[in-house]
Amino acid sequence: MTDSTASKVAVATGGDKYKRSPLAPEAFPDLPAIDGVRFAAGEAGVRYRNRVDVMLAHVAAGSTVAGVFTRSATRSAAVLDGQAKLPHQSPDHGFAIVVNSGNANTFTGKRGVTDVELIAAAAAAALRLPAGHVYTSSTGVIGEPLAASKITDILPVLVDALDAGAAEMAARAIMTTDTFPKGAVARAEIDGTPVTIMGFAKGSGMIAPDMATMLGYVFTDAAVTQTALQEMLSAVNRVTFNAVTVDSDTSTSDTVLMAATGRAGNVPLTAPHGGFQAALHSVMEDLAHQIVRDGEGATKFVEVRVTGAMSDADAEKVARAIANSPLVKTAIAGQDPNWGRIVMAVGKSGAQADRDLLTIRFGPHVVAEHGWRAEGYDEATVAGYMTHAELLIDVDLGLGAGRATVWTCDLTHAYIDINADYRS
Amino acid sequence: MTDSTASKVAVATGGDKYKRSPLAPEAFPDLPAIDGVRFAAGEAGVRYRNRVDVMLAHVAAGSTVAGVFTRSATRSAAVLDGQAKLPHQSPDHGFAIVVNSGNANTFTGKRGVTDVELIAAAAAAALRLPAGHVYTSSTGVIGEPLAASKITDILPVLVDALDAGAAEMAARAIMTTDTFPKGAVARAEIDGTPVTIMGFAKGSGMIAPDMATMLGYVFTDAAVTQTALQEMLSAVNRVTFNAVTVDSDTSTSDTVLMAATGRAGNVPLTAPHGGFQAALHSVMEDLAHQIVRDGEGATKFVEVRVTGAMSDADAEKVARAIANSPLVKTAIAGQDPNWGRIVMAVGKSGAQADRDLLTIRFGPHVVAEHGWRAEGYDEATVAGYMTHAELLIDVDLGLGAGRATVWTCDLTHAYIDINADYRS
Repeated sequence: MTDSTASKVAVATGGDKYKRSPLAPEAFPDLPAIDGVRFAAGEAGVRYRNRVDVMLAHVAAGSTVAGVFTRSATRSAAVLDGQAKLPHQSPDHGFAIVVNSGNANTFTGKRGVTDVELIAAAAAAALRLPAGHVYTSSTGVIGEPLAASKITDILPVLVDALDAGAAEMAARAIMTTDTFPKGAVARAEIDGTPVTIMGFAKGSGMIAPDMATMLGYVFTDAAVTQTALQEMLSAVNRVTFNAVTVDSDTSTSDTVLMAATGRAGNVPLTAPHGGFQAALHSVMEDLAHQIVRDGEGATKFVEVRVTGAMSDADAEKVARAIANSPLVKTAIAGQDPNWGRIVMAVGKSGAQADRDLLTIRFGPHVVAEHGWRAEGYDEATVAGYMTHAELLIDVDLGLGAGRATVWTCDLTHAYIDINADYRS
Repeated sequence: MTDSTASKVAVATGGDKYKRSPLAPEAFPDLPAIDGVRFAAGEAGVRYRNRVDVMLAHVAAGSTVAGVFTRSATRSAAVLDGQAKLPHQSPDHGFAIVVNSGNANTFTGKRGVTDVELIAAAAAAALRLPAGHVYTSSTGVIGEPLAASKITDILPVLVDALDAGAAEMAARAIMTTDTFPKGAVARAEIDGTPVTIMGFAKGSGMIAPDMATMLGYVFTDAAVTQTALQEMLSAVNRVTFNAVTVDSDTSTSDTVLMAATGRAGNVPLTAPHGGFQAALHSVMEDLAHQIVRDGEGATKFVEVRVTGAMSDADAEKVARAIANSPLVKTAIAGQDPNWGRIVMAVGKSGAQADRDLLTIRFGPHVVAEHGWRAEGYDEATVAGYMTHAELLIDVDLGLGAGRATVWTCDLTHAYIDINADYRS
């Protein structure tokens, strides 16, 4: 990281308004350089003052790219643009990603589409790429026109500043109500060739106070074909980013992009590779967990694990019903081992369930089984467990082999403070 | 109402802990006597002290009965019992309803089933009815054994106290975290014969702090066959009790029972009757709205009206996505006309939607249309509208003729206070 970027990091935390989450990791990880990938971040003043709010990533020619996007029916202009471009990438060119925070450019009509085109055109010109090879994301206020010129004006400066070591700056530039930047790294071997996967993400509420979105960017020096990259990204996404929920709300802008530069020199993967996919899983799960740890107002990190369902889909229904229940989440905030609310959530989930076969555990403690409170259940012991910052809610339906895990956080006064706070 | 019951009313509000909702109606309505129906309420001390917590309703021979129950997969013993009895009612006998508050008798294993049988048997003996003609409901803590003897012990006293004018007492006895009792009345004519429909209900959270449930009991002196009564109750229930949501959570004990004594002397209705069904709708909608007005921590009563969907089912998906979104509900608490969150909720609902055809109104104010903030949108004006206690969110999808209306309330700090409060 250069001196000039380091000086900006000090003011880039966005943490003036909201206190760093008590569940945050101790420090941002050392993100290694990925051969073929460079970053820059700058202060465009889209909405925030005195912090970086635009990041540029450049990925060298010869790279492949994959992406997953929100399924919202009211997707942002940038998401629609990215979805249209993805099938037409050629590794002959490099590609670029431009992300701004402060404005989501969502529900901004035809003007929003034009703004995406303007940003892509400016980045393409500055980097000498086809505009079809520039992806954009915008995160922040919905329904306000984006001042694209603020972003296009600083793109030439960002291009000059591109630096393989600037990933942390980039991670900071995409923050909205995040109270800490989120990065992760993992390594794997492909037929003896060491490869690295590195990524960063942002997200706090599924939509924070008018700020939209979960965004993730993952980079590797492994050689992977477009098809294999997309297949692995989609598969891992399902059990990582798609398995976290802060408040059940889905953003209009959710995007995960992944690039593989091939510079590690392995024989290109043409199909999913166990070791590589495990490393990718580790990076994406780490980032997904950090998003929950930064959940608005969160004081508890909660894993909801469901087993014994008739199908994986049924298990997921139950896990999400528990993880999204305001009554479960407020009980956790109150450190109350209120397993009656878990029973309620199982009941309402729509999944097949039999009250008398259900086993509910809080961490190692069986609290309910055989249709009743567990024999030997000791309220004081379990209440003690609930004081931990990291909790496991384990539900076995006793019916089949279906299983699912979802991560969530508690629902506290701070969530209301953040989200009932008037925007202006 | 007799003197002895009146003296109990004074201590029966359950309002010591929680302040009367600011959205409560001014007063409990004058509930008229329904010929053939009598009520009694008493203090059994199931959990609460110094308030009535058991109600008995007796409906005379010659009456028909209909019911709707929670669809939860973890239904309570009382619900399962009621569902089993309903198809086998004969009008040759009367029937009875026994409801206790303070304990839900849910997830209490085989003991819970026995407790239901004990209560039904005791009521049947005291009233000289077949036990198959006694319905029970229990609402309160989940997972604690119900001390059935406390209830069976006072049943003979309640039988002696049965009184056609004691409906308000009965309404108070079934309250848990409710901050006010809920009653409603409407009148209709069937071929010139005046008939009356009267009912009461309880409910605050879908599950309040460990207290379960929405319960409703409706009585009429009209003559209606079992089949017609069930058909009208089910139809009206879909658009009243099933169209309110406080926190998206579904109770294990939700029950609505309706009795028709036939004493009004009309020619029995064998099929739905417009005027009668309209009056029933009025009673049930009034009660459903009162439940939302007593939503835990509610400061705003919100109608979410969706039109222009491809189908009614799609409209309902959108309405529920809006009404259950924590981000929408916290914005309303903050009096923030945050229509971006409405766009988000439409997008995540799973219903067919087109961003550019969407029109969003807050009350009379168009806030968004044609894929963008409405021309002439004035933030100050709409923010002024949001300060009202009763709000309308009106979404037109611009696609078809599907429509749905759902009622909800805001999500406030008080909801967290009530639900994160440790049970003991």
